Amino acid sequence: MQDTAPQPASQNAFAAIADWIRLEQASGVGCRTASLLLDAFGSPAAIFRAGHAALAAHVPAAQASSLSAPVAPELARLLDATHAWLAQPDHHILTLHDPGYPEALRHIPDPPLLLYINGRRELLGAPMVAVVGSRNASVQGQANAQAFAQALSEAGLCVVSGMALGIDTAAHEGALRGPGSTIAVTGTGQDRVYPARNRALAHRIAETGCIVSEYALGTPPVANNFPRRNRIISGMSAGVLVIEAAAQSGSLITAQMAAEQGREVFALPGSIHSALAKGCHQLIREGARLVETVDEVLDAMRVSPLIAPARGPAQAMPDDTMDDSGALLAALGHHPVAPDELLVRIGGDAASLAGALLALELAGLVERLPGGQVQRVVRVA
Amino acid sequence: MQDTAPQPASQNAFAAIADWIRLEQASGVGCRTASLLLDAFGSPAAIFRAGHAALAAHVPAAQASSLSAPVAPELARLLDATHAWLAQPDHHILTLHDPGYPEALRHIPDPPLLLYINGRRELLGAPMVAVVGSRNASVQGQANAQAFAQALSEAGLCVVSGMALGIDTAAHEGALRGPGSTIAVTGTGQDRVYPARNRALAHRIAETGCIVSEYALGTPPVANNFPRRNRIISGMSAGVLVIEAAAQSGSLITAQMAAEQGREVFALPGSIHSALAKGCHQLIREGARLVETVDEVLDAMRVSPLIAPARGPAQAMPDDTMDDSGALLAALGHHPVAPDELLVRIGGDAASLAGALLALELAGLVERLPGGQVQRVVRVA
Repeated sequence: MQDTAPQPASQNAFAAIADWIRLEQASGVGCRTASLLLDAFGSPAAIFRAGHAALAAHVPAAQASSLSAPVAPELARLLDATHAWLAQPDHHILTLHDPGYPEALRHIPDPPLLLYINGRRELLGAPMVAVVGSRNASVQGQANAQAFAQALSEAGLCVVSGMALGIDTAAHEGALRGPGSTIAVTGTGQDRVYPARNRALAHRIAETGCIVSEYALGTPPVANNFPRRNRIISGMSAGVLVIEAAAQSGSLITAQMAAEQGREVFALPGSIHSALAKGCHQLIREGARLVETVDEVLDAMRVSPLIAPARGPAQAMPDDTMDDSGALLAALGHHPVAPDELLVRIGGDAASLAGALLALELAGLVERLPGGQVQRVVRVA
Repeated sequence: MQDTAPQPASQNAFAAIADWIRLEQASGVGCRTASLLLDAFGSPAAIFRAGHAALAAHVPAAQASSLSAPVAPELARLLDATHAWLAQPDHHILTLHDPGYPEALRHIPDPPLLLYINGRRELLGAPMVAVVGSRNASVQGQANAQAFAQALSEAGLCVVSGMALGIDTAAHEGALRGPGSTIAVTGTGQDRVYPARNRALAHRIAETGCIVSEYALGTPPVANNFPRRNRIISGMSAGVLVIEAAAQSGSLITAQMAAEQGREVFALPGSIHSALAKGCHQLIREGARLVETVDEVLDAMRVSPLIAPARGPAQAMPDDTMDDSGALLAALGHHPVAPDELLVRIGGDAASLAGALLALELAGLVERLPGGQVQRVVRVA
C-alpha cells in the first residue's frame, strides 16, 4: 500500500504526498471519512481519479464535490511551500500508508493522514512513553517530570509530550539527557512554534529529538487543535504518565484517550491539599496505576533488559529510605520541624545538631523557616 | 445465650464474668480454642463444670488439665481486683455472649472473649470508623487526621483508634470535638495507660468517649499485644482510614486485617518523596480507596442522612479551589515561590503584593523562606 517514496522527495514522490495533502485539506473531509475513502479506493491518487459519481456512492454529495474540485490556488501555494519545506535537512512527511508511520498510531480510530516531521525520523520506530501534565505546574512537579523523563529516556524509551509550558517542557528537557530522547507532538504547522517561549527548546528537540505535527504548514495555534493533538501523543505511546494535573484539565483528556486506546495510564499521587494532584487522584480512582518510581512504569510496560540495559540506582527517585545523608535527614521528614523537636527525635546535643543543620543548609538540603523551624528540601535531577 | 447481668455487677453477675476471665486466663487457651469450647458446652461455667475427660474430647490433654485446675491464688487476686475495678463508675465488662458486645466484632475469626470498658458503653452500639496511622506522623498528617476524625464524628460516626502517639492521638482529639465521639482500643489492662504521654488524653476519652481493652487488669505494654489489638480496631469498624503510614508499618497490618475482615479500607495519598505516604500508596495499589475528602469516606460507607444530618461545608477539606482568600493563595500553590514569580503569575505592582503577602504571613497562611521565597501554609481544623 506504500505510495510515498523515501525522502528526500523527488518531484514524483512529492506528487503522491501532494495527493495526501489535498485529501487532508479537502473541505469537510475528516480523518474518518478519509479512512473510509482510502479503504474504498486504495490511495489518495485513486480517490482524485474516481470522479464525483463514484465518490458520491461513499460520501455525501458536498464531500464528493469538494474532492472532485480542481486544486485551488491556495492549496497550490501550500503544496509549493510544503515541497520547499521538505527539501530542507531533517524534514520528512510520513503518510498513513508509509511503512515508517508509527504502527500503534496507525491503529487508533482516527489516525492522522500525514505526519510532518522535523528531526530524527527513526525515533518514531522506538518504544514510546508519554509524560504529560499541567502547564501551571509546581516547582516539584516540574522536577518530578524531568527526573522521570530522564530515567525513562535512559532506559531506552522515547518520551513523547506536547511541548507546552510546565510539565511538558520539563519532560522534554529531562528526556533530551538520555539516549531514548524525545518527541514533541505540536498543535501547529511545523513553521510555527507554540508557545513562543519554547523556541530554544524546539530547536534542541529538532536537533537531537523529533517534532511531529499532523497540521499543514502555516496552521496557527487554534484552541481546538490541542486536545485533538493529544490523541497522537497517547496514540504513539505504549503508556501515558501524568505528573501533575488539575481536575478537568487537558492532561485528563490525554489520559482518557490513552485508556480508550488501550494504553497504560500512570499517575503520580500528591497532597490532598494540592489542586495539581486532584486530576492524578481522579485518574487513580478510575483505574490508572499509582506510581512512585520509574521502575514501576518500566515494570508495568514490561520493558525488557534489552531495551533497558542501564536500569539501576540512577532511576531511583530520592526518598527518605534511600538517603545516604543519614538519620538527620530521615528525622527531618517532609514538614517543618523545630530544632528542639529534632533533638527529641534523634538525641545528641544542641550544638552538634546546629552544626549538622548548618551543613545541610549550605548544601541546599535543608531550608530555615521564619519561626526558626527547619524543613528538608528534596532534590530531584 | 446471655449469661451476664446488666452492670453494676452484683456478686452473682460477677461470678459469671469471673468464669469468662478464668477461661480467658487459662494457660494455653486462646480465643479460637475458647470459641470451640463455648460452641461445645454453651458457657464458661459449663466448661468448668465439664471435667477433664469431657474437655479432653475437644482439646489436647494439656489444655484440658489447665481448664480443670482449681483457681490459683494469682487468678483469685486478679478476680478480686477486677471486681473492685468494675464497681467504679463507668467501668464495664462485656463478654462475647453479651447482647451489648459489638456485633461486627463478634463475627471476626478470633473475637475477644471479654471487653473491659472505661467510659460510655453505648458508643459500642454506634456506627464506627477507624482512623489510624504512623506514630512518627508529620505535622500535616496529624492535622489531616484531626480534621477527618472531627468531620466523621460530626457526621455521627464514632472514630476508633489505638491511642498511640501521632495519627491516633490526633484522630482521638479531632473526634472528641464531634457528637460521634471516639473509642480508644488499647493494648494494656485498663489500669495502665500507654503511652504515658497520653494520660490526659486517656482521661478525656474515658469521660466523653470510651476506652476498650481485651486485656486483663495489670497487663503491661507487651510488643505482641499491639498488632493483635489492631484486629479489634478494624473488627469493630465498618471502614479503616489510614492517614499516614510508612512501608511495612503497623498501620498496614490493621489495614490488612480490615481487608480480611471485609471492611472498607481508605488511604490518603501524599508526595512520592514522603516516606510516610509509601504505606498509603501501597494500600491504594492493593485496592484501598484513595480519598481526598471526608465526603468520599461517608459516601463509600453509605452513611445515611439519618446518621449524618450535619454534612455540609464543615466537612470539606481546605483546598485551592474552595479558598476564599482569593487569587493570591491560589497563585502561591503548594511549593516555594519567589515574589517576582508571583508577580508574573498574578500581575499588579510589587508594593501591593508585598502588603498582601505580609497580611497573609501575619494570618499564618503564608511563611517566608530563607532565600526570600514564600510558601503557603495549609490550615486544617
